[in-house]
Parts: sequence; C-alpha cells; structure tokens
Amino acid sequence: MRPDGRRPDELRPVKICHDFLKYAEGSVLIEVGDTKLICSASIEDKIPPFLKGTGKGWVTAEYSMLPRSTEHRTIRDSARGRVSGRSSEIQRLIGRSLRSIVDLGRMGEHTIWIDCDVIQADGGTRTAAITGSYIALVDALRKLKEQEKWDSLPVSDYMAAVSVGKVREQVLLDLCFIEDSMAEVDMNVVMTGDGRFVEVQGTAEGMPFTRDELHSFIDLAADGIQQLITYQKEILGDLDE
Amino acid sequence: MRPDGRRPDELRPVKICHDFLKYAEGSVLIEVGDTKLICSASIEDKIPPFLKGTGKGWVTAEYSMLPRSTEHRTIRDSARGRVSGRSSEIQRLIGRSLRSIVDLGRMGEHTIWIDCDVIQADGGTRTAAITGSYIALVDALRKLKEQEKWDSLPVSDYMAAVSVGKVREQVLLDLCFIEDSMAEVDMNVVMTGDGRFVEVQGTAEGMPFTRDELHSFIDLAADGIQQLITYQKEILGDLDE
Amino acid sequence: MRPDGRRPDELRPVKICHDFLKYAEGSVLIEVGDTKLICSASIEDKIPPFLKGTGKGWVTAEYSMLPRSTEHRTIRDSARGRVSGRSSEIQRLIGRSLRSIVDLGRMGEHTIWIDCDVIQADGGTRTAAITGSYIALVDALRKLKEQEKWDSLPVSDYMAAVSVGKVREQVLLDLCFIEDSMAEVDMNVVMTGDGRFVEVQGTAEGMPFTRDELHSFIDLAADGIQQLITYQKEILGDLDE
Amino acid sequence: MRPDGRRPDELRPVKICHDFLKYAEGSVLIEVGDTKLICSASIEDKIPPFLKGTGKGWVTAEYSMLPRSTEHRTIRDSARGRVSGRSSEIQRLIGRSLRSIVDLGRMGEHTIWIDCDVIQADGGTRTAAITGSYIALVDALRKLKEQEKWDSLPVSDYMAAVSVGKVREQVLLDLCFIEDSMAEVDMNVVMTGDGRFVEVQGTAEGMPFTRDELHSFIDLAADGIQQLITYQKEILGDLDE
Amino acid sequence: MRPDGRRPDELRPVKICHDFLKYAEGSVLIEVGDTKLICSASIEDKIPPFLKGTGKGWVTAEYSMLPRSTEHRTIRDSARGRVSGRSSEIQRLIGRSLRSIVDLGRMGEHTIWIDCDVIQADGGTRTAAITGSYIALVDALRKLKEQEKWDSLPVSDYMAAVSVGKVREQVLLDLCFIEDSMAEVDMNVVMTGDGRFVEVQGTAEGMPFTRDELHSFIDLAADGIQQLITYQKEILGDLDE
Amino acid sequence: MRPDGRRPDELRPVKICHDFLKYAEGSVLIEVGDTKLICSASIEDKIPPFLKGTGKGWVTAEYSMLPRSTEHRTIRDSARGRVSGRSSEIQRLIGRSLRSIVDLGRMGEHTIWIDCDVIQADGGTRTAAITGSYIALVDALRKLKEQEKWDSLPVSDYMAAVSVGKVREQVLLDLCFIEDSMAEVDMNVVMTGDGRFVEVQGTAEGMPFTRDELHSFIDLAADGIQQLITYQKEILGDLDE
Repeated sequence: MRPDGRRPDELRPVKICHDFLKYAEGSVLIEVGDTKLICSASIEDKIPPFLKGTGKGWVTAEYSMLPRSTEHRTIRDSARGRVSGRSSEIQRLIGRSLRSIVDLGRMGEHTIWIDCDVIQADGGTRTAAITGSYIALVDALRKLKEQEKWDSLPVSDYMAAVSVGKVREQVLLDLCFIEDSMAEVDMNVVMTGDGRFVEVQGTAEGMPFTRDELHSFIDLAADGIQQLITYQKEILGDLDE
Repeated sequence: MRPDGRRPDELRPVKICHDFLKYAEGSVLIEVGDTKLICSASIEDKIPPFLKGTGKGWVTAEYSMLPRSTEHRTIRDSARGRVSGRSSEIQRLIGRSLRSIVDLGRMGEHTIWIDCDVIQADGGTRTAAITGSYIALVDALRKLKEQEKWDSLPVSDYMAAVSVGKVREQVLLDLCFIEDSMAEVDMNVVMTGDGRFVEVQGTAEGMPFTRDELHSFIDLAADGIQQLITYQKEILGDLDE
Repeated sequence: MRPDGRRPDELRPVKICHDFLKYAEGSVLIEVGDTKLICSASIEDKIPPFLKGTGKGWVTAEYSMLPRSTEHRTIRDSARGRVSGRSSEIQRLIGRSLRSIVDLGRMGEHTIWIDCDVIQADGGTRTAAITGSYIALVDALRKLKEQEKWDSLPVSDYMAAVSVGKVREQVLLDLCFIEDSMAEVDMNVVMTGDGRFVEVQGTAEGMPFTRDELHSFIDLAADGIQQLITYQKEILGDLDE
Repeated sequence: MRPDGRRPDELRPVKICHDFLKYAEGSVLIEVGDTKLICSASIEDKIPPFLKGTGKGWVTAEYSMLPRSTEHRTIRDSARGRVSGRSSEIQRLIGRSLRSIVDLGRMGEHTIWIDCDVIQADGGTRTAAITGSYIALVDALRKLKEQEKWDSLPVSDYMAAVSVGKVREQVLLDLCFIEDSMAEVDMNVVMTGDGRFVEVQGTAEGMPFTRDELHSFIDLAADGIQQLITYQKEILGDLDE
Repeated sequence: MRPDGRRPDELRPVKICHDFLKYAEGSVLIEVGDTKLICSASIEDKIPPFLKGTGKGWVTAEYSMLPRSTEHRTIRDSARGRVSGRSSEIQRLIGRSLRSIVDLGRMGEHTIWIDCDVIQADGGTRTAAITGSYIALVDALRKLKEQEKWDSLPVSDYMAAVSVGKVREQVLLDLCFIEDSMAEVDMNVVMTGDGRFVEVQGTAEGMPFTRDELHSFIDLAADGIQQLITYQKEILGDLDE
Repeated sequence: MRPDGRRPDELRPVKICHDFLKYAEGSVLIEVGDTKLICSASIEDKIPPFLKGTGKGWVTAEYSMLPRSTEHRTIRDSARGRVSGRSSEIQRLIGRSLRSIVDLGRMGEHTIWIDCDVIQADGGTRTAAITGSYIALVDALRKLKEQEKWDSLPVSDYMAAVSVGKVREQVLLDLCFIEDSMAEVDMNVVMTGDGRFVEVQGTAEGMPFTRDELHSFIDLAADGIQQLITYQKEILGDLDE
C-alpha cells in the first residue's frame, strides 16, 4: 500500500492555477499532491553573449526552494553564497528540456527566464517544475507572438514530466517524498505530446537495475505523462491558435 | 484620488491564510492588496554562539523576494552570491521587531527562524512581513509552550506594522507601489497592541519633513495598526490561552 | 551620572580636522568623544547604469570599521567575503541622507563616493559619519562647481545627525558605547539646518516606547543637531559662496 | 565516416596508467582517445556531519578541467569564485555512481575523496572519469582493507561508463568532441560487471527520441562497457583477493 | 633630483605616534613622508587549528588600504568580495617577517593579530607596515608578558624594513610613489637590529639587474634600516626590560 | 646527506616534455625530481582594460595545485570560493617574471595566459613553473610571430628559476619538499641567460641570515639556473630563428 492509498500506476491529484502572478508574462501555481510550486516566465529583450548576432533567442531556468518548503528548514542558497549542486542540476535540466521543444531560431533576440520556486516539497518537484513551466513558457511566447506578429508559436509540441521508481520491489508512478527516500531506483522522464523522450534520467540508489526494469519504468512514465499533457491541453488549448 | 480609489486613511484589504504550509511550526500567507507573502516560523534546537550557556533563546528573520514578484524580474540573491543591502536591512528590522515582544530569557535554548518570502510585491512588503510573521511566531511559540510545558507564552503583546507617507502633499496610509515610488516621505511604523512603538523609521525622499508632519504620520499609522491587530486577535485569540 | 560626567542633554566634544587626506576631493577626520572616523568624498566621472542618459548625478556611501576600532577585534568584511548586514544598513542610511539635500538633477553625470572608515568606535559612528561626510561632500561639490562653472552649489541646506536614547529611564543625548549597549530605546535623527527631518529611526530594544517619549527624543536630538550645524557653518562658511 | 575512422560501434583506444601519483592512496591517468584525465582517491579519517555516529563511510567526488584542456581556454572555477553548474552536475554523478557499488555500511568512519582532473578534453570526460575513478577507488579500499583488517572488499561489482549518441541519424558509441557537439541525442550509461544499470542519462539536443532509439542506445552502451570492464579486470584482478 | 629634494641615500621624515588607539593591545600611527598607516596588535586567546595542542602561539597580519588612500579611489576588497592578490601578498610578508623574530614556542596558546590599514599611500606602505607593526607587536607581547608572568619577552631582536630601487640609472633609498612607478628595479628589505636579513625581495621591472647592483641595493637598505631601528629603540627602550 | 643522495650543489633530474597538450599554443610537462607540472600558454585576442588603446600586449599567469598533488589532500580553491594567498602570490611572481623578458610594446593587442597546474608537488613548484612556462610562452610567441609576420620574437633572453636554501647549516641547491620544510632560509632566484636577476626572494624561516650567506645563495642559484637554461636552449633553439 502507498502512503496515500494510491494504486502503483496512479498519479497524485494535479491542480494548476493559471495566471497566478500579476506581473509575469506567464505563470502558474502547480500542485501535485502536497508538492506546490510557482513557475513564472519573464521576457527580457537581451540574449546571452554567446548568441549575440545570431538572431536566436534563449530559454533559461532557475530553481529554488523556500527554506521551509521542506520537512526541516533548508538554509537559503543566498545565505550560503552560492547555488547548491542540486539546484544547479535541476535548473539545467528544466532549461534544457524546455529548449528542446522551442525553435530558438524563430524567437528573435529575446530571453525567456523561467523561475521555479518550490513553496512546499513532497517529492517530484523537478518534474512538476517542467510540467508547470511549460505552460508559463507558452503563455510568454504567445505574448511575444502577438507583439512580434509571428505567424505561429515557435513550439514543436506539448511537454510534461513525471518520476517513476522502484520501492520495496514495486514499480511506482509519481513518487511522494516518503517513497522517494526509500526508492531503490529513481527515474525522471520528460516526454513530448507525440510520445517521444526529451530526457530519461534513471539512478540506482544502492541497487543497480536490469533492462526489463528499465522498460517497465519507461512504460509507466509514458502513461502518466500523457495524462499530464491532456491537462495541459485543457489549459492551453491548441498550440496553433 | 488614490490609484485603487481608497480614502487617504484607508488600509488595503488584508487577508491572512493561517497554517498555510504543511511542515512549518507556524505559517501564514498574508495578502495586503496585491502584496502577497509567505511567512513561516521554524523551531531549531540550537542557539547562536553568542548565546551559548545563557539559557536564552533567539528569534531571527530572513527576507527574500521571488524573482518575478516585481514588475521587472529581479535577479536572485543566490545568483549574485550575496544578500542584497535592501533584503539585509529588512530582515534585520523584522528580527529586531519580533525580538522586542518576546521574552527571550524564558524561551530556553531554541531559535525560531522567521522566513518571509514575497510572492508578489505591490508596496509595503516589509510591514506585511512583520504583521504576518507575528502570527507564525506565536504559532511556533505555542508549539514550544506545549512541548516544554511552559506556564504561559513568552510574548508580551500583539504587534503589527504599516507604512505611511506623503504623496503629492497628502498624508496617506498603507502605500501601494505606485504611491511609494512617488512619495516625498516614507515611514514604516511598528506598534504593539497597547499602542506603543517598537520601530519608527521615517525617510525623506527628496524633501525633509516638519515636526507637524511627523505627528500626522504617527497618528495615521497608529490607527491602521490597531485595525491589523484586531485581525490578529481574531486569528490567534487570547495570548494567555 | 553618565560615564563621562556629561549632563543628559550634553553632546560629547566634537573635533573636525578639515582636508585630512592628500588625494581626496573632500575629507575630514571627525572625532566625537572617543569615536573617530575618516570621511572622504571622491569624484568619479561615471554614473550608475540606472541613471545613464538622464543627465543626473549620484551620491553613494560606503562604511566600514577598522578591525581594532572596537573593544574586541572585529573580523574584516573582506575576510568574510561580504559586507555585513550592519555596514550595509549604515551605508544605505548615509547615502540616502546625503542625497536628500543634494539636487542630483543639477550635478551632471558625476558620482560622488563617500567613504566613512571608523578608526575608533565609541558609539554614534553612523551619526558622526553623516555629520562628517556632509562636509567632505560639500568640499567635493565645490571642486565640481568650479570645474563645471556652476552658478551655485546644488545643495539645499546644512545637515547633521545625532543619536538619542533612553537609558535607565533617562532620556540622553549622544550616547557613548556603554550607554548605547544598555539603552532601552535608541534613536538616530538626521536633520537639516532649517530644522526639518531627513531620517528618524527609533528602535525599542526590549521595551516599546510611548508617544510622549518619542517627542522628548525628537526635542533633544533637534537641540544637539543645531549645535553640530553651527560647527559645520564655521568650517564651511556660507553655502552660497 | 567518423572523424577518426572508427566503426559506429567501436570504442576509442583506452590506456590506463595505474598508480600514476606518488602520494594518493589510489590513482590513474586514463586516456580515451585524446581525452586524458587524472583520477585519484584519497582516504580521510573523517565523515560528513550527517553520518556522525552511524559507523558508515562515505565516497564523494570532485571534477574539474584544467583551463587549457579545452580547445579555447576555459576560465577557472576558482577565478569565478564558484564551481560551475556543469562541474557540479558531473561530480554529483561520479560520486553517486561510485557509492552505488560500495557497501558504505562496512567502510567504517572513513571518507574517500575522488578527484577527477581533466588534462585534455575530447568528449566523454564524465564517463572516462567514472571508469578511471573506479580503479582508484578500489586501490584505496584495498589499502583500507589491509589497515582495518577487513575480511573482504566492500565493493559489490566492477563498474564502468560510456557515452552513446545519435549523430546525423546514426547511433554511435563513445562520442568524441566533434561528434558530441553535433549530436541530436546524447546518452551516458553507467553499468556494473553483471550488466545492470547504475545510471542512464539520455538527453535530446533539439530532437526528441523514440523508444526504439532508446533501446539501440542501451544495447550499444552495454557492449562498450563490457570491454571497459574487461580492461579493469586485467588491471585490478579479482575483487575478492 | 628627487621629487621632494632628498639625497639618493636619504629616508623621508618618519613620525611614529605610539599608543594611537584606545582599545588595541598595541598600536601606532606611522608616517613616512606622506605615507600614513595605522598598525594595531590584538591578542586573542585562541590559536589556528594546525597549532592545537602544540603549546605554541601565532602571529598573523592583515593589510588593507582605505579606498581614498590612493590618488584615484580604489574599490574595497569587501565590495569585490575577496582580498586582492596584492593585499594578500603583502599581509603574508608582514606576518612571516614578524614571526621570524618571535619565539612562538614561548608564546603559549595566544594569537596576535596585526592589522595594517593604510590611511594615505605615497609608496613604501609594506615596509612602513613592518616597521610600525613591530612596535605594536612588542607592546602586545609586553602586555602578555605581564599577564602570563614570563621572565622575558619572546622577541629576539628589533626589526624594520625599507625599500630601495633603481630609478633612471640611480640607486635610491625609500622610494615615494612617483619614484616607485618609474623604478626599473624595486627591492624591499627587512632586517634585524644586528644587521641580518629577514626578507630580501628584489624585482626587475623591465630591466634585469646585475650582481653589483644587488650589492648596492643591499648596502643602501641596510643603512636606512639602522636609522629606523634607532627610532624604534627610542620608542620601545630595551627589549629586556 | 640529502634525502636523495645529491651533492649540495646538484640539481634534481629535469625532464621537459615539449608540446604536451593538443590544443594549447604552447605547453610542456616539466618534471624536476618528483615535482611535476603542466605549463600551458594560451593566446587571447583581447587585452586587460588598463591597456586598451596602448597597442601593448600582456602576459599573465595562473597557478594551481591538483588536490592530491600533495602528501595530504589539499582543498580546491574553487571549493573554498577563492584563490589562496599562496597561489595568488606565486602566480603574481610567474607573471611578473615572464613580463620582464617580453617586449610587451611589440606584442600588439594580445594576451598570453600562462597556466601552471601542479600534478605532483615535491618542492620547487614555483621555480619549475617559471622554467617550464618560459618554454610554453616562447612557443606561443612563435605562433604569434608567424601569424602577425613579426621580424623577430619580442623576447629579450632565456629565463629560468631555481630555489636555494640553508638546511642544517648547509647551503643547498634545488630543495625537495623535506628539505624545504626544514630550511632555515629559503630563496627563490629567477635569472636570465646573460646572468642577470629578474627576481630574488629570500626568506628567513626562523633565523635571519647574513650578507655572506646571501652571497653564497646567489652563487649557487646562478650555477643551477645556467644548467636549466642550457636545457631550454636545447629545446627551443636560437630565439632569433
């Protein structure tokens, strides 16, 4: 039995509050069970130095947790004077994933900053960040589309993410914190609307896994992600409109 | 006319969502007009080095803004590698104010960390932080009271804060961002339930002010703070219980 | 009785050594009792990015203490890798106060850097810094006036600062370190030559204060500041010349 | 055709210089084609704070590149004042992978520090770091085994890593830098001697990949890793001796 | 002709104000021509970790310049977030020099912190720092001698320092800033009262120097240092008393 | 007897592997006994701000040790967030020495970055860094000469460095780590091919030294350096070709 009574292949309840912030060009409050985070997208009319003169745009992400989003208070990155290794790894993953479905070459010299701030953490913050940021990003790109009079959105597909794992010999979808901390294997999967992979990151925590297990993780993740993408479609409608 | 149609001596609507976070010993989401912030209180069974062996406790605060809480995206303190001067000044004010109504000598060797994270900023974030943190602090102290079997809460009074200012020759209560950015004088006042001052910080932005003006600022702030304390009493009930 | 035998409303002896440094455009060594600090003003022909293209100038301040200006050696900000919260708060106060009596719009694209370095600290370093920096600033502006052929100095008035406080139920002017460390209330006041307020910062250390007490602090501070401004006038002469 | 004439499923020549450093408890110089790095293992008789009192040991890794290991000089992390996001991500991967095949509970209160310093980078530095560090780690554990009179090595299996990728529609093993920079998909795989997975990290650079492609990546990586492990066995001999 | 009319072998006027600071265990204001700095010595009853349990003491130094001690304002180390390479090199020289004439083994577990803060810089700040710090150090050690009831001071000799250099083909003693900036060779020499060398640091700026030139630098420095030590003896009296 | 059986005036075996790195414009692996380091020279078509518009070039150096180049693991500068004082001092010495034999005025607006990374440290790393970097620098300048069609190399002479010291009353050439740690005097000397001095840095560790001792240090160093320069000439050939 899972701590919250879910079936092994069941997602936690997902709730997305669209246009959550007053100033951001795109923003959501996404809740996945007790995991809650704010994702915002901000347009800046500058690009990083390595893109100067290419006419391309850029999408980059920052991820942080409020100190008391966690069971025990976590010291702030700003108090330690640097971004933690974990935050750095997560924000690189978010940025890379989002860039893979955006046509940067059609964006013009704009940067979209994605900010993912975890209000409450109960497992799966990085995958919820990707699922939520995707919506904020599309909102910001729609603002740019209007402003720049683009014919279409420079976005190739929907995209969402979920975690899967092996806990006490069972393969589970969408791990909460307690499950995650006992997991023998932990995998994060990012997929597009047409069922292809953007990222697959599987880690054996203590016990290496077999190829068959890898397949079952992938199957389970694919099912969960399609449900999340269905929700994204409800919120965003057709990308071509 | 004020941008939101308020009278000069009128507070913005205040909404406090009590017990907002799952893990923190005390927490609120406080909204003052469009200003929104999360205040949490975390108990740690350690004290700073300078208190070792004194049997005293400590209350300290950290303040930060989400990057897109502001009209234009603000770079994160963690990305700059240090806490900004403004954040540092505000968190010192919050900590100092809260300590002034707590009997640290009766707290035992515990630290209470107050975290104020601004979700959306429309003026008055530091005073909202004090008003909201007071509630989170009392909640955490009530948990300690039960755990440590104290006879009473080591808190001397209620406490709240508000801003006042002079804008286009008019004295206004509870400035929103637009008013704040045009203010000739900006004053933050922190008061207790019995009407005494904990902090008075008045700053002339461009035009020094007279003693009569000082009096009218103080009068207006005192009225506003008593309304906020009435709200705190509704939420917290009697401090002796 | 005060530690140095002063009356409650008596300033410590103030000594200002004008043109203390060889290279700076303005500089003083100011001594207030045993508190000693060097204030210098440096002209730079650049302005901060947010003023680019406005034609305005800027005045900014930095404050630091020599490690052994204090009773026990204080670790250097540079050894800790960042400016302390206290230094940051003080230098913001100094900069803000000085800017309030300068007409930045008439300064042209120049920045004046104010450096306040405490040689010896016996209470009241931030107010002595304001009183002394004012002189260094005027000296630097006079150099600019000559160089830029301005008709008049872009300075609206004299300005000085003093601390007041409540110690063992007594209201005292110009607290030395021992008094400051026992004070129940500590207030710093910055005023102009015409008796108006630039900053009022009152803090209850442990015991909130009443409105009557606030009035008596203000009265006492105003008297002290007028004496300091008389001294400034002796040194600087008429601002219009 | 690959730039160095290899078949798609062919590893670059691998050369491991065992016991490369005079002082380290374990060390190699590993060369994979033109990629060269030094891996060392250092024993420290301390453990991180979160393990105090558990009797467990720890394995942690640091990764860095010499400034001119790259085609264009890379600025040092120490000059920038912090570890880059990329280095941080890689050193977390190395440490996590090595810990997955060590029985930390049998290590006693020792930390083994793994240092991977890239002398020359031509693609695949993170996988070469894992393959090489494994040897340095076993050497250090053998020193501890002797010193602590353990019955057996607390290591469950051999372990090595390799990259695979999709370049111009072709699936390739062990990408060199030129191939890596053109890759549509880039995957790093860490496996044990018995053919199970420790880490699978696949990233679509621009073009999401299908499940069939995922399978062919995994197949190719598994073959390459078994060749590397054969080499490790030659160098280290039987883990039980 | 030298800028201030001195003979090639002539020191600038030296003025040492003894016991300059109220709190420090030893302190001077030393002026060498227009170069002015404060040297203080602070006793701390702790020693660095690498000396724990050895019974030895330690002497260490920090060096810094006030921002406007220089012709053009220098940015503070604390604003840059780190000690500059130049400051670091100078403070290592000062600490090493002072330790060479102190018997650390007889000091007990005390650290003496030397702080050298340059008020005004006109060349020769590092050598003036050594000459002045020596006096502050002896004062602090005399306080420790009394407190710890040592039989004698753990100091082997007097010590002072001076610069020499080659400017426009002429060998000069005690270079001021203008001379220093034109010097082809710049040498700093630290010597003891009995005429032996503690440090010799000669640097060719552009033009390597011959052995004969080295000799003439050394001769000139030795003469200057003996004059400085005569002055130290006047101030400090006999080291055995 | 010396630990490795050398005569007092005998260098350790020196081995220089020329063109050690694939990408750098100049590079060597230099081994002096068990001391091993990589020196590389990188050309950058930019110059530091203080040279803008002068047409001059620049040479600068960075020095670092791999964590396990030392007997006990040394924490990385990047993990501590700053360059250590020792590294900073050494890299300043290397840069200054190299600049003294380069005609920067003839270099055009190029910077040459010298990177010295210690693989294994057994004393004399800073002098080996100078001897090795000289070769890397000449290689890079030869590339620039060809590219920029200079008539001749802007290098005035060969240059190498060695340490000398006094250990147990004996004057020794080229100290290894054990000797260095027992040395009463430690001196580093940098000389040119024509026997002139670029740097002389002598430090008394505990016992000041006499002028006669200074002479014998210099004599011994001069002999050692001429042997190193003979080796450099073998590698580099005539500077005019």
